[in-house]
Order: sequence, then C-alpha cells, then structure tokens
Amino acid sequence: MTRKELVQQIKRKQSYLCVGLDTDISKIPTHLQYHPDAVFEFNKAIIDATKDLCVAYKINTAFYEAMGLKGWEAMEKTVHYIGPDHFTIADAKRGDIGNTSTQYAKAFFEQLPFDSITVAPYMGEDSVKPFLQFENKWAIVLGLTSNDGSKDFEQLQFTEANGKSNKEFLYETVLKKVSGWGTPENLMFVAGATKAEVFAEIRKIIPDHFLLVPGVGFQGGSLKEVSQHGLNKDCGLLVNASRAIIYASEKEDFAEEARAIALQYQTEMAGYL
Amino acid sequence: MTRKELVQQIKRKQSYLCVGLDTDISKIPTHLQYHPDAVFEFNKAIIDATKDLCVAYKINTAFYEAMGLKGWEAMEKTVHYIGPDHFTIADAKRGDIGNTSTQYAKAFFEQLPFDSITVAPYMGEDSVKPFLQFENKWAIVLGLTSNDGSKDFEQLQFTEANGKSNKEFLYETVLKKVSGWGTPENLMFVAGATKAEVFAEIRKIIPDHFLLVPGVGFQGGSLKEVSQHGLNKDCGLLVNASRAIIYASEKEDFAEEARAIALQYQTEMAGYL
Repeated sequence: MTRKELVQQIKRKQSYLCVGLDTDISKIPTHLQYHPDAVFEFNKAIIDATKDLCVAYKINTAFYEAMGLKGWEAMEKTVHYIGPDHFTIADAKRGDIGNTSTQYAKAFFEQLPFDSITVAPYMGEDSVKPFLQFENKWAIVLGLTSNDGSKDFEQLQFTEANGKSNKEFLYETVLKKVSGWGTPENLMFVAGATKAEVFAEIRKIIPDHFLLVPGVGFQGGSLKEVSQHGLNKDCGLLVNASRAIIYASEKEDFAEEARAIALQYQTEMAGYL
Repeated sequence: MTRKELVQQIKRKQSYLCVGLDTDISKIPTHLQYHPDAVFEFNKAIIDATKDLCVAYKINTAFYEAMGLKGWEAMEKTVHYIGPDHFTIADAKRGDIGNTSTQYAKAFFEQLPFDSITVAPYMGEDSVKPFLQFENKWAIVLGLTSNDGSKDFEQLQFTEANGKSNKEFLYETVLKKVSGWGTPENLMFVAGATKAEVFAEIRKIIPDHFLLVPGVGFQGGSLKEVSQHGLNKDCGLLVNASRAIIYASEKEDFAEEARAIALQYQTEMAGYL
C-alpha cells in the first residue's frame, strides 16, 4: 500500500486505528478454543467486526510462532483474509546483517503479502535498508517503545563521536539516522504512547513520517495526548490497540464487544482529524 | 543443555566450532534443489558430515521463514534431527515487550527444542528476561555484531545519565547491563569476529560468559586473534562458520568438502585449547 492510499483510507474512514491481532489461544473465548482452526476463526470474527472502523491490522508474529507450524499457517490465512484494503503490519521486530535481513523481507513481503514489518535498529544501516528495497512496502523501525525496558538503552543519553555532549537520547539518534535511510513513503517509526509528552520532541525530528503508536489502552497511553502532539498534515499516526479490543469480552459476544470498543476509538479519532 | 555439558562436549571434541545452517535453497547443490525436501536433505548431509567436529549448530531463522510454511517445517525437522548432543541456537534475533518475548521463548524452547535463541537488546530488560526463565535454556544477546552497521549505534559513545562522560560505547553498556540480568549459566553474548582487537576489552567486562562469534570465514575474522583474546578457563567461545562450511562445494561432494573445512577449523581450535 502506498502512503497516498493509506491517507485516503484514513480520510474516508475517519480513523487511524490499527487493530492488533495478538491472538493468544489461551485467552480467546472458551467456545472457540477447541475449534480445529481456533486462532484463524477468532481473527476472522474480529476482522469482520472491525474492518470498517480501522485502517490497519497488526499481527504480532510471536503469538503465532508460539504455536509452531499451525500458528504460522493461521498467520498466513489471516493476512490473506485481511486483503488489500487495509494496511497490514507484521509486528516481527526483525533485523540482521544485510543478506539475512533480505531473507526476512522476502518472508514477509513476498511469501506473505504484508505491507510492512517492524524492524529493530540495533545492528544499524545494513540491517534496516534491505526492508526498504521492495516497492510499496514499508519498514517500521523501533524508535521509543512503550515498555519499562525502554529506559535501559533507548533513553540513555549520548555524546557524539566528536565528544560534544548534546544530551541526545539514543532513540533520538535512531530517529535522526534511520530517517536518512528511507523516505516518509517507505519508512515509519514505532513511538510508544505512554510517553505522550515526548511526541512533540519526536515531531521536531521527524515531522512527516507516520508513527505506529502501541500502548494505547491496556498499556496506559492517552489517545488524546498522542493525537494532540503526534498528528501531522497527512494524519501521520497509526494508533494500535490489541488486547483492549480483541479481548473486550470472553463470551460469545466477543466480536460485538470488540466492535463497540473499536467504535469508541474511531469516534474519538474522527474528532481529532 | 547446561554449561557443564557444553564444556564437556568442547573438551571431548577439542572443538568450539558452531556450524551455521543458513541454508538458502538457491545456493545448495543443483542435484538437491529439486528434491521435495531439499533444505532438510541438505542440512541432514551437512550434519552427518560435521557432527563429530562441532559442538553447536546455529539455524538462522530468516532463511527458513523466507520459504514460508515449508521452511518452518524444514527448521523443525532439522533441529529435531540434530538431537540433544549438540548445543542448538535459533539465530532469530527476537525481542519484544515482556509478555510477547515470553511467546517467542515458548516458540523456540517449548514448541521447538532449541537450547538457545539470539536476542536483540534495544527494548531493554523486560524484553530480554523472559528468555532467561526456562531451565537449561539460554539467551544469546547481541553485543557487538560483525557487520558494517555496527558503527551506527553499537559503537556510538555514551555519557551516563549523571552527565559524566566515560567514553563508553553502547555495546559496552549493553554487556554491562544485560550481564546483570542473568548468569553465565543462562546468558551468552554475540561478539563479532571482525573486531578481534576489542575482544580483550570485552573480556574485561564479561570474563566468564560464553561468546558466540560470527564473522569468522567469509566475513573476514581471524580465528587465531579471536581465540587469543576470547578464550577463558571454560573455553568460553562458540565460533560460528556458516557459508565457509556449508557452501564449500556446489557439487555432489558438498558434504565431504564441508567436512574438510570443518576439520581445518577443529584442528586449529584443538591447538588453541
């Protein structure tokens, strides 16, 4: 999906909601758990119930890999079921030396029809660039994440190699450097929503890029603050909610309840657009 | 596998060689490429030809994921075929927020019988610790990698939060912090072999931990220098060679040629032990 198409979807649906399909078989409603294709059936119901309210679906690969071959198959079926009208994100946090990152890109962009993949920046340029070589595909690079552990390295302060102390955080250095490796047409960044106060700082560094914002909902971020500081002229945000939507109910009405929560997000988002 | 068992294997075989099964279907011998189970057949032949000369096998997941479901199946068959007498490494470079890292750990330690998985440190403590909660399983955290991109972030210099400039590289900070999250019994680090001159520095920070050393062979590292500066009282090294061994020949004699190269490594290693 191109940036233009994504922005059109956002305007048409008045939504920048991304639904996270972090489907854990032990948490889905009991009546589905023994279905032979439980995870896919659950995802299908969630997708059918939310597709007019969201512009993107994010599949966290960990939950599928934990089920082995059967999980990989459920992921494959799910991303095909979503189809081309939604922006699809493989939340896989991959990254390796150049020729190996190319293999990961092939896995998610050719073997599977994902529009984008999340990428860990630690190994630097040749680990990120291979993901930027595929037409209309995107790398979404980790900037500042929403977990406690972001304090350990992402929020450490740097001196430049020349020795001048400029009090820059590692995640700011990452945003600055990585943004030079691609364009706002093929590169987004992950920016954690529990740090809404720093969104203004992030926007100074990367005013144009789309930001994928996890951490709204169960991780405690505020949609209002994120939107206030994060929106740009093309919207520029994809705000993800996973557990808050997909586990809205443990009962047979789980899809209706998921829709109700998604509708709350979409309604609030329409107000900010 | 426990550390004690690994050290016993190293002493018995007089080898700290790890063979990297980065099996790319487009690079295996032509006579095998059209086999219905080509990747597994290739791996099986390599394993049979090298198993008495190496103590570990490293499977880079990217090459298997690039083949979709069929690739995941080949990985599963390969790790089962290797069996319990070799230390198995899922070179997957995973890492996510806590509950998600736990899913990755389940994928590689429970669904699949790997002894260890490589982990990217960027997201901090709660992204690494879940991999340390499984008995006799290991996290191998990226310290300094062997690629050009390691200059971008790993080799940036830091100030501590208190403002004192101590000229520490990010990868050194990573080694120091992460080594506090586990023990030399469940935690190793990746240390790239193209930087043999810094192995002495690394050993000052983590004298006891095992280091997984990629980059010997095609990436240009010297086994002699790595061994000189990296060996400790328990050996403490797993030196990986992938392409140099598995693609030693493109012909029907590929397994014999792989064995010949592995034997060169093992003989050299016996001299350093």
